[in-house]
This record gives sequence, C-alpha cells and structure tokens, in this order.
Amino acid sequence: MTDLPETNTVMVTLVKPEGQLEVFFERRPMPEPKPHEVVAKVLTTPINPSDLGLLFGGADMTTARAGTRDGLPMITADVPPAGMRAMGGRIGDALAIGNEGCGVVVKAGDSPEAQALLGKTVALLGGEMYAEYRCLPVQMVMPLPDGTDPVDGASCFVNPLTSLAFTETMRMENHNAIVHTAAASNLGQMLVKICAKDGIPLVNIVRSDAQVAILKSLGAQHIVNSSADDFMDRLIDAITETGATLGFDAIGGGKLAGQILAAMEVAAVKRMTTYSRYGSDTFKQVYIYGGLDVGPTILNRSFGLTWSLSGFLLTPFMAKAGMETVGRMRQRVVDELTTTFKSHYSHETSLTGALDVATAQAYNAKRTGEKYLIRPHG
Amino acid sequence: MTDLPETNTVMVTLVKPEGQLEVFFERRPMPEPKPHEVVAKVLTTPINPSDLGLLFGGADMTTARAGTRDGLPMITADVPPAGMRAMGGRIGDALAIGNEGCGVVVKAGDSPEAQALLGKTVALLGGEMYAEYRCLPVQMVMPLPDGTDPVDGASCFVNPLTSLAFTETMRMENHNAIVHTAAASNLGQMLVKICAKDGIPLVNIVRSDAQVAILKSLGAQHIVNSSADDFMDRLIDAITETGATLGFDAIGGGKLAGQILAAMEVAAVKRMTTYSRYGSDTFKQVYIYGGLDVGPTILNRSFGLTWSLSGFLLTPFMAKAGMETVGRMRQRVVDELTTTFKSHYSHETSLTGALDVATAQAYNAKRTGEKYLIRPHG
Repeated sequence: MTDLPETNTVMVTLVKPEGQLEVFFERRPMPEPKPHEVVAKVLTTPINPSDLGLLFGGADMTTARAGTRDGLPMITADVPPAGMRAMGGRIGDALAIGNEGCGVVVKAGDSPEAQALLGKTVALLGGEMYAEYRCLPVQMVMPLPDGTDPVDGASCFVNPLTSLAFTETMRMENHNAIVHTAAASNLGQMLVKICAKDGIPLVNIVRSDAQVAILKSLGAQHIVNSSADDFMDRLIDAITETGATLGFDAIGGGKLAGQILAAMEVAAVKRMTTYSRYGSDTFKQVYIYGGLDVGPTILNRSFGLTWSLSGFLLTPFMAKAGMETVGRMRQRVVDELTTTFKSHYSHETSLTGALDVATAQAYNAKRTGEKYLIRPHG
Repeated sequence: MTDLPETNTVMVTLVKPEGQLEVFFERRPMPEPKPHEVVAKVLTTPINPSDLGLLFGGADMTTARAGTRDGLPMITADVPPAGMRAMGGRIGDALAIGNEGCGVVVKAGDSPEAQALLGKTVALLGGEMYAEYRCLPVQMVMPLPDGTDPVDGASCFVNPLTSLAFTETMRMENHNAIVHTAAASNLGQMLVKICAKDGIPLVNIVRSDAQVAILKSLGAQHIVNSSADDFMDRLIDAITETGATLGFDAIGGGKLAGQILAAMEVAAVKRMTTYSRYGSDTFKQVYIYGGLDVGPTILNRSFGLTWSLSGFLLTPFMAKAGMETVGRMRQRVVDELTTTFKSHYSHETSLTGALDVATAQAYNAKRTGEKYLIRPHG
C-alpha cells in the first residue's frame, strides 16, 4: 500500500483571458492523507452532463483541436464572447474535473475511521475525479459491498441521489405525483424504477418513439412524446389521471416547463366547481435541474397565479433535507446499486483517451442512450 | 334606515358562447342581511387592474360598442379565440365585479356585531362592489374612523394589503431588500412610503423619466429606468448596494423578471470568493403579481440554479401569513389611511358612466398616473 507513484495525473480545464479553453493534464504530487482522509485509486468515473458544464463550458467545441502538453494530449477550443462572459469567474484558474467515481482505498490517514477503509471499494464524491488518484475526507467516500464491480459503483451519487431527491422533494412539499422530462435518460430510468417501487405516479416526457420504447420496456405507465401532434392533450390526460403538481425539467430552454405548468392548471381547473379569474388555487411547482437546451425559457403564463418555477441543485437540497434523510438516501443507493440504480455506459475510455478530439465531441453531444465511463487505470 | 329601495343595480360581465362579451346592469332585489351580515350603501369603489381582468378579460376592446338594456347603458365587444379559451370557465355566467370599496352601513342583521356597525363608514372587501348596495358578512367590512372621506376609504384592501404583503413576505422568507417594477403605480408609491418608514432598502424600476420624477418627489432612493441604455448596469449597481434578493413584478411578460434575477446573481457572484459552475448559492426570488404585459415571460437563465420565479396573489398569502399578521396589516392600513396608503384618483365616474365606451377604453388602457373611482350614488 505504500508504493504509490510520486505523481498523480489530473485532468484540468482552463479558460484563458484571450478567449481560449484548454483542457490538459497536470502531474501533481501524490497527496498525503491527513488523519481523517483516505487516498483512493480511481477505477471508474462517469462523464455526466454536469461535468461537461465545467469541462467545456461555453467553448465552441466545433473549433476543438488536438495538441500535446508534457507528452500528454491536450484539447484547445475557442470561446465566443458570450461564453467568456458566462465563465468570467473562472478565467485563469486551472480547475480539476469529475464529480464522482469509484475506487479502492490505497492509503489512509491515522484515524480509525480512515484506517477502516483501507483496501475497501468505495464510491467517491467531491470533484477532481478525472485523475489517477483522489484524496478525500472519509465522509466523502461511501464503502460499497465487497465484490462490487467498479462499473456499478461509478455513479453512486449524482443520478441516484438526484432521482431520490425528486421523490423526497415530492413528500416534503406535499405533492402526490411527478412529471419528468428527458425521461429516458439514465436518471429518468432510475426514477421510473424508484416510483414503481414506491407507488408514486410518474408522467414521463420524452421526445421520440425510441425513447417511448425504452421506458415501456421498464414498465413505465405514463409516457408522453413531446414530438407528437397531440402532445398537450396527452400531457393533460396523464396529469389529470395522476394528479401531478410537481415537475422536474432537465431541458430548461424552450416552452416545455411552461407547458407542464399549463397542463397542471388545466387538470386543476377541471376539478374546480366555481370560476376564478385568477385560475385554480392548486399550487404547481416545476424545477429546472438541467440545461440540455441552454436557450431562453419561454413561459406563456396561462396557469393562474399559484405556481412556481425554480432552479434545482442536489447540494442545497441535501443541506435542506438534513443528515438523516441523506443517510437514508445513501443507504438505499448501496442496497439497490445493481437494480434500481444500475447505470448503463455505451462507451469506455482511458483518462488520456477522454481528450481525443473526436471522442470529446461525441460525449459532449449528450445523446440520450450514450454515456461515457472513464477508466483512469485502463 | 328601513326605507331602502326594492332593487339594487349591479354591474355584471357576461361572456357569450358565440364569442362576445357583454357588460351591463342587472336590477336585483335588495338583499336582506342575515344575523351576521350588513348591507352597505356603496359610496366609492376603485377600478383596479385586477378588476379589469374580470370586467373585460380577453375581449378586444377596440371593438367595443355602446348599447342599452333595460334603459341602462351596455357595452358589447368581440372576444378573439384566444380570449375565449382563456375565459372558458366563465362562459354563460353573468358575473358581478368590483373587488373593494367604501360605504356606509344602512341595514344590519340581528347579531350585536352587525348592529354595532349601523351608520358606520366602512371599507368593503368581497367582490360585486360595482353596485349601489352590497350585503357582506361583518368580517368582510372594516370600520373606518368617524369622518373618513369615502374617497380615502375606497382602496383599503387591494393595494395597501398587497404592498404590505411584499414587506411581510420579505421578512417571512428571510430577504433584506426588495426590487419592485412598475414602481410609480399607486401600489408602488405606497411601497416607497412603507419601505422608507420601515427602513427597508427598495429598488424601484420604472420605464420613463416622468415616473422617475414621481418617485424622486416621494424621496425614493433607488430608481432605475428600464428605458435607459445603461439599465442593466444601473440595476446591478442598485441591487449590489441594497443586497436585494426578492423582487415583485407587476409586468409579467418580456425579459424583465429574468433581468432582475440576472442582476441579483451578478451582485451575489461579486460577493463570492471561489468559482462555482452552478453560480452563486444565494437564493433569488421574483414574484409575478400582475400582467401589465400579457405576453410570454422570457428567461435567459444566466442566474445559476438557486432561484425561483413564482406567481403572487394576496388571498393565499393572507391564508399563509395567518390571522394575527393580517390583523396587524389591516390595522396599519386604517392608521395610515390618509398618509402611507393615500390613493390618488385622476377621474371619477358614476356607475352607469363607467359603461360609456370611451370612458371604458380610457381606464382599460391602465396608464400609470391614471386611476378611476366609481361613485355609485354620484
């Protein structure tokens, strides 16, 4: 356990003031764990949409070109003025990337909690995972059952905890059913399984027949295709049937969030017995948790005055939900890692392979059904 | 007190299934108060934007034409298909209009609470005020000090309680300053006075130099003109200076609500010491409480993920705030009726005069600085 290499290769992303993005590798000194820390060898780490926001951000990836730095691959791309404005806060800072991963603990600090993790397969949270090694405090690693495949342990946090956060939010905010968009995603498939298991009515919005088929194969009951001519009618039907007053939208841009609120209002008005010029008094909430469409959100406010559209992010949710709830959520992820929370990866790559230009452009396209897994040690 | 006329003239608005709006008068039997009710002679009742939503709704008022019914004036106007869809719930129902007013109690039910109000000047809440008389439960009337001018008592509820609700919301939701749009309105002027008195920093957004002048004359400290070329810079400055993270928007349509969130985010990011791809963790809330622009709300989501845009309506706010808070708010309105909550009316009209076509088109234009008062008994 002590013969670790002297350096640790770490992927970093840098926005330069002259309007260029560079993504490359740094060879950093191998970290030395403090008493309450462990060093994990990173075996797997997924490329999530939320990682891409930091990795390539506002750069124009059609301009991406290959280079090398210290003998390792580098990608350079141009950043248009709007991208530079959006990333103003990070210009000149080389930032490490990678929200989560799975690894094995190869060195531990002196505390009993850290020592107890030595040799264990663990899920890792805390950024900077696109690296060979990662040093973390013990509370940021989650021990997995012996024999867990690192592929299954790679995505224990972002998608599993976010999908569980949706159902927890439903309970905390007194709703009874959920509407979800981009519902054929890895996260969406987890949500279908959670809701089936917990008896929560779920309206799945997808945008193609192929995605309808994916969710049907999982047993999803309410699937609405936003590309269909009768989309709004079908959405109203599904919301009327389920009574959903809570939505989670991964898309963000365009009219969809407003259409969900409008369909919820139509369903609510159907239940009213007297007319109100202000619309229904049913509270309708849609959270935007992603930005698959970074264009403007357009709300045709035909949904009364009892509504809210909000941003949603896992970290502040967990802070609000409290330790007990988060502990219960984490335990459920471990218990159902190879069933409910099974992730599917269409492609694998090495750490340096992730900076091949064609590969980077492919995963940056965020196509449904395609998900990349990095194996830093092959 | 017993020689009341046998009938009560009441203004009603009717959407007909064939696509026409009719506003006319009905002669209804004089109401007989139940033990806990009083009948008030309506002396004054204002025309608020929220009344116009019910009065003319989605009708095209450029097509308004005069008629008569039972010898009293009537307005007929065409309703375009979009208007018919929006008003689907009220087709065929003749609805009485008028949220609030001031009157004198001319008949009372047998209960001591009702009898105690006999002869009193009272503020009235509960709809159907565009009438000669109004019968209401005692809890819907608020006794005003002897000698109160009915002009001062006409608008005791909608604008005063809404502007007070803004500052109550600020405290309940842990904000420290407020941004307000269409800030030169009657309501906006009340809010300027409340905030000055209570030491609450207030950013006033207006859209003309004339409106800037109105608020300057009231001593408002932060006034930003949305028509100016440097609007966003000035808005960011004012929000940075005040620390406002709460906004109330009367306009609804267009980019303004999103611009307020964006300016709040810029101010919040200025206070951050480390970069986050998710933006600041400062919670930013904008409430839309009116629809001066009924067009779509357009959000360029450049304000991180810690934000909320919601509808705001006085009635559910009061239900949430509770009796004690609402009682305190009502008492303050009575105490400061001729100072903080003084309303200004640019025009007065009789009940039948309100259905003159040119008059109706004028008040339906909702011009800042113009406000109409109906005096049902001249």
